[in-house]
Amino acid sequence: MGLFKGKRVVYTPVKDVDLGPYSTESYLQANVKAPRMTGVVAKIFTHLLECPILGTLLLFILKGNNLIHRLITNAEFEESPLFAPLHDFEDIKEKEVKFLDPSLSPPEKVKHAIDCLPMASKATLDGDDSSFCRWTIMDYSKAYRSGDITPSLVAERVIAAIDESTKPPLRMGFFIHYDAEDILKQASESTLRYERGEPISVLDGIPVAIKDEIDCLPYPTTGGTTWMHKKRPCKDDACCVKRLRLCGAILVGKTNMHELGSGTSGINPHYGPARNPYCTSKIAGGSSSGSASVVSAGLCPVALGVDGGGSVRMPASLCGVVGLKPTFARIPHDGVLPLNWTVGMVGILAGNVEDALIVYAAISGEIPHHQPSNVLTKINLPLLSLTKSISDIKLAKYGKWFDDCSDDVRICCSKTLHKLQEHNHWKIIDVTIPEIEAMRLAHYITIGSECSTLLDSFRHKNFAELGWDVRVAQSIYGAFSGLEYLKAQRMRNRQLQFHKKIFAEADVIVSPTTGVTAYPILDDALKTGELDYVNGAALVRYSIAGNFLGLPAVTVPVGYDRLGLPIGLQFIGRPWSEATLIHLAFATQTICMSDYRKPELYYDLLRI
Amino acid sequence: MGLFKGKRVVYTPVKDVDLGPYSTESYLQANVKAPRMTGVVAKIFTHLLECPILGTLLLFILKGNNLIHRLITNAEFEESPLFAPLHDFEDIKEKEVKFLDPSLSPPEKVKHAIDCLPMASKATLDGDDSSFCRWTIMDYSKAYRSGDITPSLVAERVIAAIDESTKPPLRMGFFIHYDAEDILKQASESTLRYERGEPISVLDGIPVAIKDEIDCLPYPTTGGTTWMHKKRPCKDDACCVKRLRLCGAILVGKTNMHELGSGTSGINPHYGPARNPYCTSKIAGGSSSGSASVVSAGLCPVALGVDGGGSVRMPASLCGVVGLKPTFARIPHDGVLPLNWTVGMVGILAGNVEDALIVYAAISGEIPHHQPSNVLTKINLPLLSLTKSISDIKLAKYGKWFDDCSDDVRICCSKTLHKLQEHNHWKIIDVTIPEIEAMRLAHYITIGSECSTLLDSFRHKNFAELGWDVRVAQSIYGAFSGLEYLKAQRMRNRQLQFHKKIFAEADVIVSPTTGVTAYPILDDALKTGELDYVNGAALVRYSIAGNFLGLPAVTVPVGYDRLGLPIGLQFIGRPWSEATLIHLAFATQTICMSDYRKPELYYDLLRI
Repeated sequence: MGLFKGKRVVYTPVKDVDLGPYSTESYLQANVKAPRMTGVVAKIFTHLLECPILGTLLLFILKGNNLIHRLITNAEFEESPLFAPLHDFEDIKEKEVKFLDPSLSPPEKVKHAIDCLPMASKATLDGDDSSFCRWTIMDYSKAYRSGDITPSLVAERVIAAIDESTKPPLRMGFFIHYDAEDILKQASESTLRYERGEPISVLDGIPVAIKDEIDCLPYPTTGGTTWMHKKRPCKDDACCVKRLRLCGAILVGKTNMHELGSGTSGINPHYGPARNPYCTSKIAGGSSSGSASVVSAGLCPVALGVDGGGSVRMPASLCGVVGLKPTFARIPHDGVLPLNWTVGMVGILAGNVEDALIVYAAISGEIPHHQPSNVLTKINLPLLSLTKSISDIKLAKYGKWFDDCSDDVRICCSKTLHKLQEHNHWKIIDVTIPEIEAMRLAHYITIGSECSTLLDSFRHKNFAELGWDVRVAQSIYGAFSGLEYLKAQRMRNRQLQFHKKIFAEADVIVSPTTGVTAYPILDDALKTGELDYVNGAALVRYSIAGNFLGLPAVTVPVGYDRLGLPIGLQFIGRPWSEATLIHLAFATQTICMSDYRKPELYYDLLRI
Repeated sequence: MGLFKGKRVVYTPVKDVDLGPYSTESYLQANVKAPRMTGVVAKIFTHLLECPILGTLLLFILKGNNLIHRLITNAEFEESPLFAPLHDFEDIKEKEVKFLDPSLSPPEKVKHAIDCLPMASKATLDGDDSSFCRWTIMDYSKAYRSGDITPSLVAERVIAAIDESTKPPLRMGFFIHYDAEDILKQASESTLRYERGEPISVLDGIPVAIKDEIDCLPYPTTGGTTWMHKKRPCKDDACCVKRLRLCGAILVGKTNMHELGSGTSGINPHYGPARNPYCTSKIAGGSSSGSASVVSAGLCPVALGVDGGGSVRMPASLCGVVGLKPTFARIPHDGVLPLNWTVGMVGILAGNVEDALIVYAAISGEIPHHQPSNVLTKINLPLLSLTKSISDIKLAKYGKWFDDCSDDVRICCSKTLHKLQEHNHWKIIDVTIPEIEAMRLAHYITIGSECSTLLDSFRHKNFAELGWDVRVAQSIYGAFSGLEYLKAQRMRNRQLQFHKKIFAEADVIVSPTTGVTAYPILDDALKTGELDYVNGAALVRYSIAGNFLGLPAVTVPVGYDRLGLPIGLQFIGRPWSEATLIHLAFATQTICMSDYRKPELYYDLLRI
């Protein structure tokens, strides 16, 4: 990563850094120096951090111990800052792709997406289920059209399932708000449309859940807090929600999340922890925790989340579902709770790759007028309808990073990658991605400073209403200087250059999605939340480039650890290359799905 | 500016702010609370600021006293941050303009510029000089072509003049470095070209001075310090210098500047204060101090400066010359000492508007590959060759702001504006530009944080080698938090929206260039520099939008105060509207030039 001059790192010019497999660049493991804390200890620590002078001192020590001073604050860069990962649209010549005019209506876009789907559904209502798979949007649509079932009946089942799962003994913490009456009303309108033979699109009557960070009427947007909606009333649907509604989707409520997106466990002290359907005593991951768990549990084929630091991909991976985070600015951000400006993106959680594709088509494109003109791109849909998956794919793999995870994750992801290679004749290119840990810290400074600035308007009165772990996070978030923010942006520029070089040789970067699988929710964390930066760092290990560099990324379930907890494999793509990612995700799903397992908690809405 | 909630300002949504003449928006005068300090007092203050804890406390008090906390740190914004004032290129339909392909060679561009010039020169070698005017590039060019004089002879006169002005009693502090041998070598090559009848362009043989913030071989780039060039050796000409050299210009040395551009007086403790040719006991203004004073004193028809917070326009105004700061990113920034990323731009100081146009044509355009593609604009040259100046111009004037200057400045600028209106049938539109003082503070936070971050790589060893005033500036620069930097960028977005609304109604904004004229250089400031934030604030009062919003701006001399010190009038334009600005500047020069006075110190290089 460059020379050490005393306590300063002088980063090597990008052109002189070897990104090949035998690079001398060292891989720095995250060296998180912060003990796990919950309960009273977390409270005491919070109070200390919030002390005027002692707090400043503690934060200084924390930053120093965690290498922020060495790798960012005192480091020397050649690069100028890159403030936002807004990529010019380039025609990157994706293979087997169909381009859409972004000004098409959402139902028209969905229609085009259907044409891209594989011909045969993987399961049918009457099929056997020797291998588990979740119902797809097409399954619902067929069932509705055939009259086997109505949206109203599905809505009733969803409501019953939510009701049941909310109460003891389950207490799944799926939703922060849902309104049975509103759900039934949407469903009966959808049912009438099917009765008239006039469904709007295949999304008509499909239950969709929305992370409580995205505006969706008639619900408040809490962001996982107890007070945000009072300060910032929800007055309209977010743009992405509006598009789903235009397609006829039934919006079934606002899913639970890590408070203010400021954590990765999904343990929300106000609304209960979101639990993992594969093992309800384990975390769902965060921060789009509820969105991942409702899809995993079969309550909806798809849900929306927001991904500012892996927040869609991590819970998707932990809950065994597909998670797609598109290129920065691909989906309009209007109506999303402003928690940061330069790293967050709406993302899609889905039971199947096909469903992620349909929703991606529905909500993408046509950046509103206030966005720069250079991101007015065409929407790229992958032709999954091909008889063979695309070949000639080059996957960049950084071995030391890829392997920096639990044994189960490593073995499972490596096996899958091997199968993918064999099956599709894809090529692995061994590379070195330098300074990944420094990028994680730079991203942390960025998302922290931005979140702290955005919350500043609210915080002065409501700090005490936050969970303890989030209070600690906010204390750290507010402790960065202008210099640290700017140096973090210099690291962003540097990393974009590294990644561009890698993408000159390879189509995607492949990695596990998380370094660990779902871990237990301990009782003492329920009321205070928990401070667990060690597990946190392992969870976000592979997520950062997607957010900090605005790159699209997708996670697909590829297996289970020895406790039966899901494991995800991640592909990170070039800017605007979602079609390629979905192709790869589909190919991965195809070879893995015969081993898919049913979660401990699963609602089979089409066949109860 | 919005509601006060306790100590917090809640800014009114832009759409609800009245920008009309009867707006209730209050005009907040800069309320600078920092006493003027020089000598020992400045030293003590510097040491206090640099103390670990006391310094932090002092800085907190300083920031609070100067309304930074109220107007920025604790303020509530609706806007998202705008990080860089990079404008998409729009065809803004300028009148009477000629567009150039930016890929033309510099001499070709200069040729096109000549076609745009007025037919008659204002003075000739044999003419009377009842009214004073400086020799233009065309005057030099004609004299060279006619053989009346040679570049070598001019070079000898330049060298003699510099030698004389450097020594007592003058000690003008024009240059930091100049090399007689190198000047003579360039001149003799130019002379040969004229002898062969093959001058490269009208710039062939023209002496041009370069601010010591811009790389120019064979000189080091000190940035006004005693050490920067040792840390950052100058290895090549900056892009803009390269272009001038390609046109045959004689680069006569590196001009004096306020150290690190961190001040507006031009009092440099290491190289002596740059003195004002109109009164050598007064400041030249800064930070492009020497570039303004050499042009004013007749040593060069043009010089290059850099403008990060009025640093070209202020000294141009104080020294009675033309100063042009183009749109952000109009001139490549390669080879300019990196002191900030988002506010600085190379600018042109010239004795006449026509010369500013020629050099603008020579150095503009063709942003190198690493710049975003959306700023690849055509170069717009104003057709000054028209028999009548352009009509139909609407000038926005904010009365309270326009009048917030010394009586002499106000009266002179108002009279000129009145004459311009009468003479050209231009229309004044009275407007309100809200939150100008908040913008000044936001710009200060921005340039400060960026400068501090850039200097961090050097500072740890060389802090003690800085002048005392710059040490204080750097202490303040480093004291801003990530939150303050981000909120400053939110103010940037807000102000851009205000200015866009004004530019929807008016072609330019008109104002004085500075709030005061050149003030005395006191003896006690010579060794320490001086801390004079009150005069500093008055100097930069009208400069900020040009830098913070990346707007082009031009200053033209329009008269003198009661002491005979020059006064400038400023036009601020829409992005990419340099042609309009030059048109307006030319019209202004035309009506003012009969009153132009010769400086106290003036070298008539063509007629000694």
